[in-house]
Amino acid sequence: MSSRLIDGLLTTDALSHAFSDEVLIESMLDFEAALARAGAACGAIPMPAGAVIAGAARLTAVDIEALLRGARQNATLSIPLVEALTRHVAAVDPDAARYVHWGATSQDVYDTAIVLCVRRAWRSIQADHARLLSALGGLAETHAGTVMLARTLLQPAVPTTFGLKVAEWLGGVARSWHVWAESYDRTQVLQFGGAAGTLASLGEHAAAVEEGLAGELDLAIPDAPWHAQRDRFANFVATGGVYTGSLAKIARDISLLMQYEVGEVFEEGGGSSTMPHKRNPAGCATVLACAHRLPGLVATMLDCMVQEQERSVGGWHAEAATVADAVQAAGAAVAVLADTVEHLTVDHNRMRRNIESTRGVIFAERVTFEAAPHLGRERAADLVKAAVQSATLSGRTLADTVADSADLRAALSSHGHAALFVPETYLGSADAFRLRLIRASLPATRKH
Amino acid sequence: MSSRLIDGLLTTDALSHAFSDEVLIESMLDFEAALARAGAACGAIPMPAGAVIAGAARLTAVDIEALLRGARQNATLSIPLVEALTRHVAAVDPDAARYVHWGATSQDVYDTAIVLCVRRAWRSIQADHARLLSALGGLAETHAGTVMLARTLLQPAVPTTFGLKVAEWLGGVARSWHVWAESYDRTQVLQFGGAAGTLASLGEHAAAVEEGLAGELDLAIPDAPWHAQRDRFANFVATGGVYTGSLAKIARDISLLMQYEVGEVFEEGGGSSTMPHKRNPAGCATVLACAHRLPGLVATMLDCMVQEQERSVGGWHAEAATVADAVQAAGAAVAVLADTVEHLTVDHNRMRRNIESTRGVIFAERVTFEAAPHLGRERAADLVKAAVQSATLSGRTLADTVADSADLRAALSSHGHAALFVPETYLGSADAFRLRLIRASLPATRKH
Amino acid sequence: MSSRLIDGLLTTDALSHAFSDEVLIESMLDFEAALARAGAACGAIPMPAGAVIAGAARLTAVDIEALLRGARQNATLSIPLVEALTRHVAAVDPDAARYVHWGATSQDVYDTAIVLCVRRAWRSIQADHARLLSALGGLAETHAGTVMLARTLLQPAVPTTFGLKVAEWLGGVARSWHVWAESYDRTQVLQFGGAAGTLASLGEHAAAVEEGLAGELDLAIPDAPWHAQRDRFANFVATGGVYTGSLAKIARDISLLMQYEVGEVFEEGGGSSTMPHKRNPAGCATVLACAHRLPGLVATMLDCMVQEQERSVGGWHAEAATVADAVQAAGAAVAVLADTVEHLTVDHNRMRRNIESTRGVIFAERVTFEAAPHLGRERAADLVKAAVQSATLSGRTLADTVADSADLRAALSSHGHAALFVPETYLGSADAFRLRLIRASLPATRKH
Amino acid sequence: MSSRLIDGLLTTDALSHAFSDEVLIESMLDFEAALARAGAACGAIPMPAGAVIAGAARLTAVDIEALLRGARQNATLSIPLVEALTRHVAAVDPDAARYVHWGATSQDVYDTAIVLCVRRAWRSIQADHARLLSALGGLAETHAGTVMLARTLLQPAVPTTFGLKVAEWLGGVARSWHVWAESYDRTQVLQFGGAAGTLASLGEHAAAVEEGLAGELDLAIPDAPWHAQRDRFANFVATGGVYTGSLAKIARDISLLMQYEVGEVFEEGGGSSTMPHKRNPAGCATVLACAHRLPGLVATMLDCMVQEQERSVGGWHAEAATVADAVQAAGAAVAVLADTVEHLTVDHNRMRRNIESTRGVIFAERVTFEAAPHLGRERAADLVKAAVQSATLSGRTLADTVADSADLRAALSSHGHAALFVPETYLGSADAFRLRLIRASLPATRKH
Repeated sequence: MSSRLIDGLLTTDALSHAFSDEVLIESMLDFEAALARAGAACGAIPMPAGAVIAGAARLTAVDIEALLRGARQNATLSIPLVEALTRHVAAVDPDAARYVHWGATSQDVYDTAIVLCVRRAWRSIQADHARLLSALGGLAETHAGTVMLARTLLQPAVPTTFGLKVAEWLGGVARSWHVWAESYDRTQVLQFGGAAGTLASLGEHAAAVEEGLAGELDLAIPDAPWHAQRDRFANFVATGGVYTGSLAKIARDISLLMQYEVGEVFEEGGGSSTMPHKRNPAGCATVLACAHRLPGLVATMLDCMVQEQERSVGGWHAEAATVADAVQAAGAAVAVLADTVEHLTVDHNRMRRNIESTRGVIFAERVTFEAAPHLGRERAADLVKAAVQSATLSGRTLADTVADSADLRAALSSHGHAALFVPETYLGSADAFRLRLIRASLPATRKH
Repeated sequence: MSSRLIDGLLTTDALSHAFSDEVLIESMLDFEAALARAGAACGAIPMPAGAVIAGAARLTAVDIEALLRGARQNATLSIPLVEALTRHVAAVDPDAARYVHWGATSQDVYDTAIVLCVRRAWRSIQADHARLLSALGGLAETHAGTVMLARTLLQPAVPTTFGLKVAEWLGGVARSWHVWAESYDRTQVLQFGGAAGTLASLGEHAAAVEEGLAGELDLAIPDAPWHAQRDRFANFVATGGVYTGSLAKIARDISLLMQYEVGEVFEEGGGSSTMPHKRNPAGCATVLACAHRLPGLVATMLDCMVQEQERSVGGWHAEAATVADAVQAAGAAVAVLADTVEHLTVDHNRMRRNIESTRGVIFAERVTFEAAPHLGRERAADLVKAAVQSATLSGRTLADTVADSADLRAALSSHGHAALFVPETYLGSADAFRLRLIRASLPATRKH
Repeated sequence: MSSRLIDGLLTTDALSHAFSDEVLIESMLDFEAALARAGAACGAIPMPAGAVIAGAARLTAVDIEALLRGARQNATLSIPLVEALTRHVAAVDPDAARYVHWGATSQDVYDTAIVLCVRRAWRSIQADHARLLSALGGLAETHAGTVMLARTLLQPAVPTTFGLKVAEWLGGVARSWHVWAESYDRTQVLQFGGAAGTLASLGEHAAAVEEGLAGELDLAIPDAPWHAQRDRFANFVATGGVYTGSLAKIARDISLLMQYEVGEVFEEGGGSSTMPHKRNPAGCATVLACAHRLPGLVATMLDCMVQEQERSVGGWHAEAATVADAVQAAGAAVAVLADTVEHLTVDHNRMRRNIESTRGVIFAERVTFEAAPHLGRERAADLVKAAVQSATLSGRTLADTVADSADLRAALSSHGHAALFVPETYLGSADAFRLRLIRASLPATRKH
Repeated sequence: MSSRLIDGLLTTDALSHAFSDEVLIESMLDFEAALARAGAACGAIPMPAGAVIAGAARLTAVDIEALLRGARQNATLSIPLVEALTRHVAAVDPDAARYVHWGATSQDVYDTAIVLCVRRAWRSIQADHARLLSALGGLAETHAGTVMLARTLLQPAVPTTFGLKVAEWLGGVARSWHVWAESYDRTQVLQFGGAAGTLASLGEHAAAVEEGLAGELDLAIPDAPWHAQRDRFANFVATGGVYTGSLAKIARDISLLMQYEVGEVFEEGGGSSTMPHKRNPAGCATVLACAHRLPGLVATMLDCMVQEQERSVGGWHAEAATVADAVQAAGAAVAVLADTVEHLTVDHNRMRRNIESTRGVIFAERVTFEAAPHLGRERAADLVKAAVQSATLSGRTLADTVADSADLRAALSSHGHAALFVPETYLGSADAFRLRLIRASLPATRKH
């Protein structure tokens, strides 16, 4: 009764697995097993009980429907799951069953399980991110000298290089990943506070159980339980939203460059159910679809932070699904974008033709700058504007219409003014910026 | 590999079924069958082909994994589904297979299928809404005379009745339902435009197929295809967000009234995995959790409206999952709140004791108003404020500390001032408002 | 110390005036004056006091700084404003000063004042909306026969008309306006409940004062005070978000059509500070900027609905600024879009050239449909796909490459297949849809 | 025509000044002056021109209305401002006027100016944050031993200390500040790319001007211009949203603890316009109002990241107002919360009485844990649950009803079971956690 198909574009197999019923239950049972071992190790519970519980906490025949009913009745999945585990242990060893979940509260096991699900998802996201970085890095190198139009407000501006364009993409992705990865690291902490965050029921054993449990699960120990302090997950989702925004910017650019009328880059693309000639930016559409989800999910996480006292009424209960949706959408976006960029086709001839089709008007700024010291800026601007209009109306090149003006000809004479209309000579710091961006994105420079 | 458990609080069985893979596919096939019948009826496709396709468009062995792969490759589920159906039909009758999906585009079948899923969900939401209205209406009648504290900024204000409080809840729910239901009605339209919204491939048959198809599916015919005009769904989700907000307001109030220190109403509640004495507002927590999701989902729908030309890159692709999440969260909220309100316990004695525990300071406004015409408003306010402070510090009642002031005694003498401290005599228009709210919420008054 | 410039694109002069300090204070004083008159008329306060207050409640020398300090201290502007008015009245007539604000609470005056500010803003929005409808309607008529490319996923699909495209814009705007205008009507209600929504302090005069006050302000009487029931404003902002989304869709389309490489429509546009040749879609940029604000503002309004008991802690306090921002952004969007559409230039020659530049591949669907009954759909599709690829690689037209295939030639022979590549003959129901959309958008059809 | 009053609770004087017209213009002129000096220093423009421009770029008589008109016409304030400056310079020295804005584009000056406005705002936010940290730190020390109820889902759970509660608040604030401050640091970079991010018009002087300009303005040099890469501001606002969420959690807790029926802490509070007895949590209301704005503003920033090519149509144009709103709301929240916490009254007697009023049922978990090893967990839980119910119904203490059960008496005999009901002996790791949180929040531990 799930909706895998409706959500299909917003996740991947690996990511939906990381948040599947199976992995969630396994993670919750991992917590209970680790708790039993840690408790037994320090004497909080009897050693044999610990062994029995740890041995029994495996995924066997789980009744998902029953868990769902129990979860809805109590507004937490932990209660029916702990009950099911207790029954399971009691069938083996009634004495041991006394010590199931010893010292923990519902939120401890559930929050920690979500931390573990996130860790599993992260591994696959890391791999896709590495693929994307590598693909972008490659393109940024290959196209260091590929000249193309820069477009501002969707209008031709001045020349740039595709190498710089890709390096800008790379920079955005690398910077926002750096922040997201730091946020991820901060989520990898144990949740363990007992009934109300004091571990009171464990008495003197509290610190030892806490340490043992964290060690078993390979999680850091936070300064204190965080039942109602949700900044870690909120930051993780919020900065994941920024990361996804950086991906979406690339997808939007590619989809625009892939327009038939522009035709400068192409993804492999998908088809149409009715039009044989169509080659659709299916990868970009998927990345953008994922990105559309993030702002709203981030808003929900922030809104949920305002939790009541030591455990909230509703704020906490909305988080896990939001985290799962956000991580899957962000992760699907990077997976699909990595595929898209890895298979991108670049048409450098079309890029040049598109520059040429502007008939040189994109050099109007350059001509103005060259002429300004001789004519004054305002007069230079006026003359060039007139030349641009003349070129636009007549279909001649700006080089020609500039030459119509004696003043401009004189002001630009030192150059042989045709040289002003060669894109390669008007790239400014494009390559310097490209190199700085690539350097800053290297793993050596950033920790993540 | 789905996450039914993580999403468990944010849907119900009926709602998750309405958006299940099974129902989605069935709805898409219903579209294709209806299209075949409508096409055959008017001669757009051969009659036998129509019959074969309509007969074959049934859910048989569907390979969800293959559909998912195909959907991801093309950024639409329709392409692999239509291919699967075509193969299925071709196995029966290769001639008929030529006419599968005749005249339609991917978005036609998918959008219409989502319309049908929404219709299925709506039926269950309507039933839960009716239960909630009825339960609120009953409470508002029963407690017409149940006196309690009104609280503003979480501080005792003046007396009110629980009947009015519930009637206010009822009013908010009824009004926002009215708007939501109108929005729902507007979603129940066919999507049918062919490749780019002109139905060009159907030529002269277009109008007849459109009419037949809408009739088969019992959907209205919109003014035109709405491939890139998404106001209907955006409005539906946005006004569903308002409806859910009205539900959440009730849940927040109940959870506050159920505080141990307030203790005026109680839901049946859920337990704690570690504390035997706990009775948690599990229903309220669930309603509030659902409500936390809506603002973000609405933001996504609005953001998705800005679609490119005749079909968007990404905006459309993010919608269906957002609609499904929103409808399920809103629907789960009303289902759970209906349960909660149906089983609400009201402690009218505690309500009265809570009034008494304020020792009459909540009548300070009343005393001021009574004294103001005699003493001037400022002087009256000053004297009453002093009496309130004296009552607060000394633990005496305001009636007593007011009597300490000769001026106040004189100003209030006409009343026998003790009468001023009886809640039942300071309810103002509470009952008039209660009745107006109830009347306005009746089905006779509103269409929905 | 305001930031008119930072907010400059997100409002208009008329709209920022509607929410200015001046108009807000004037509206609050209008409430107090009307309250005094209504109270005096029914004997709730002495007739002379009513006259004095009503006469004094005019904007004179207001100390904005002092009001701001008082508002921040009490988390409501009403307290310092009522104090200032009381002092002002007391200077004229100390007796009358006793009756200032008689029976009302802070929220009554503030909420009602915001209702009045919204009304003022609405008038200017209505006028701009009417301009936009008219401009779109004109374009949709003029360009009934202007043939252009439909583009799906930013790729050429099949031909359509600019008239239908504009009519689709018109339909989205008209439908979402209809809903928004209904929501607006529902906001035009009085807020009047006294301390906690019972009007207790007015006793038997409550109904008469309520009626008189509503009449004075030309507002409807709601079923009950709505201090903590915020569905009306939430709906208004939410459906305003949908309306703005419909505007933004148009702006996005125009900005895409105005790309140098597409060049089909042009707004008058703005310039660049450095590039003389630039003609930027400044109007579209502004409309889209406004639209970017709405989803977040709507989310805030929905989030704010979850208010505590009879008056909330914070939820209410965030609303007015959110309403003001949302109304201004939506209103600026329609004002600027109306300007943009009124001055839109359409290049129908370029539209035709852009169709021709696809060399007929956009008719691939048509050819497939024509051939399918003869060859079977799959074979037809395969042959046409091959012809498309051949056309793409060779730069020949699809008409030519189709003719390379004997099977296709035979299947299409009845037509003289060149006729298949004429856009005017493949517009399907474009004009029928155009007419239906225009008709549905007429004021006669919709109430608003 | 501004709305200072409507926005009054969502900013402070210092913050609204930082984003005022005055400071914005001053910052833009600072950029132009610094650009002139840097250009002159390296020979990009003549030395005298640099001196004249730098000298003239001061705020004199600015025509805000004219700037607003120009900004709206061009969708950027930079164009009319640069024109105004050019005219101003030309009046002094026409030759120098040629070199105004030399090499920069509109977005360079505007983005950098917003960076400078943010820096000014940050200084005041830092001071308020320091006050808040200090106030929380003090409370966490003072109340190390102040016993109170922990409340989960708004129900009494087990005892905790107010010191731990405050330390949890402190931890959330300190952690989320750390992240926010890092994000802030990353915003403090120059924007300087010229027409399309290549600085082409500056040729060989580009690097020198960039360095000089950054030095003049005391900003870091980014890897490259970031005209369409908006991760820095998006991260800043997103993590500011998390920070504000941590503040709001405190405000919500205080407002709940300040309820008349709880009465454990009090802010100084504001009054009511009609009820003399009211003491409202005005500070909390303001903090929560600010916090309600952030999720939506963050969503807008994330949504705006998806920018087109080298400069976007609308995405960029929506950012500055969003940043200004977000920084002001976050900054107002911390300023008001610092005031609130600095003046918080704590009633430790009431905290103890509230524990006592539970008649010991909050020790049910403890009793169960003590009895479980003797009776088995399930039997222990059943017996304790019965005792809790008996206590609830009869109004006796749990200590008494536990003693009714011979089994429980026996199981607990080793203790003298009354000792189990002393809160001070059931605080578990409360103090250890408190100390860890305080230590982690110290400036020595965190960089910020």
